[in-house]
Amino acid sequence: MPREVRTRQMLDAAVEVFARCGYRTASMDEIAELAGASKPLVYLYLNSKEELFSACVRREAEALIAAVRSAVDPGAPADRRLWNGLRAFFAHTAAHPDGWALLHCQARTYGEPFALEVARLRQQLVDVVTDLIARTAREGAEQECALPEREIAGLAHALVGAAESLAGWADSRSCEAAGRTGAPPSEQEAAGTLMNLAWAGLGNLMNGRRWAPARS
Amino acid sequence: MPREVRTRQMLDAAVEVFARCGYRTASMDEIAELAGASKPLVYLYLNSKEELFSACVRREAEALIAAVRSAVDPGAPADRRLWNGLRAFFAHTAAHPDGWALLHCQARTYGEPFALEVARLRQQLVDVVTDLIARTAREGAEQECALPEREIAGLAHALVGAAESLAGWADSRSCEAAGRTGAPPSEQEAAGTLMNLAWAGLGNLMNGRRWAPARS
Repeated sequence: MPREVRTRQMLDAAVEVFARCGYRTASMDEIAELAGASKPLVYLYLNSKEELFSACVRREAEALIAAVRSAVDPGAPADRRLWNGLRAFFAHTAAHPDGWALLHCQARTYGEPFALEVARLRQQLVDVVTDLIARTAREGAEQECALPEREIAGLAHALVGAAESLAGWADSRSCEAAGRTGAPPSEQEAAGTLMNLAWAGLGNLMNGRRWAPARS
Repeated sequence: MPREVRTRQMLDAAVEVFARCGYRTASMDEIAELAGASKPLVYLYLNSKEELFSACVRREAEALIAAVRSAVDPGAPADRRLWNGLRAFFAHTAAHPDGWALLHCQARTYGEPFALEVARLRQQLVDVVTDLIARTAREGAEQECALPEREIAGLAHALVGAAESLAGWADSRSCEAAGRTGAPPSEQEAAGTLMNLAWAGLGNLMNGRRWAPARS
């Protein structure tokens, strides 16, 4: 079997086991067995448990980012771009629950050697959203309301956090789903909820209509 | 020294050490030393590392929830209630970076024995926000636009996730801050960014103006 195929099988098995057990508790024996490979071969190809975990996180994060990026048609109107990006995000996380569990629940601990790698990958997702908002803001700028770069970065962080939380709500194994009653929201429902929260807000902002506290 | 005071000192020390090292790597020796107590006394008062961690998470989460709850004046207008709640959230997380690190970065792993406890506490925060939105929706309902309960829960999850992500962006040790350039945002800036993202969106929604994709 070509090395590439073998490696993919090992990563598939590792994502499943890490998602179920967490980084610390996962056993290399179980991963090797599930991959149908010997443990020495897993070490030969992937080097160490730590590098195996990093490789899993990288693969899953890159797939998620690619799914969102390819869903956003640069020629579409601003709200349609966001809508398509959000739907792709929720569809991908629902279709890859183990990969999502890895990114969302297992990988945020710091102090772990892979923490920087995870932070770097999440930042790429924030960058995609930042681009999306910045492009919208430039279109809005014809109506004299350029948004400062820093505020755009903050908005992107807020939007990504909101999407993560909603994807967690949809994933029955995640911590966010603990209080959920009823079926998990569909990708359509999650994306619709977030558009209703965010779009009219962003939409107003792009047109220079800011929120301000009333003087009290 | 009264047991209550001793216990508080132990919890203070534990929050600091857990926030720096994570649950697994933190040592009970270091916690005892930092608390100025013997290790047997720490075990006598707090029982086990696991229960100590749970007690820390509970104390920090309850303080955060109480801060948000008490900032929301039920008599204020809807946008002002949200604004005050958000400012309290960002002020509290900035003033208690160790407690926040514990809740945000260390506690989301699942597979750990305290995962359920953490999920329960986060749900309480979501409940506070759900109440806030539901009350606003009831006021809006005079204008015939009651929001379904399920959508309100989704909106609350999105809002809490956005706030968590922005608080992470402000906390230099957190994974979300990796890509930040410049100073951490102040609580005012973080709360303002989120109001601009969310309020006009929520505000429109309460008045029956939903976002809908244009037919393509």
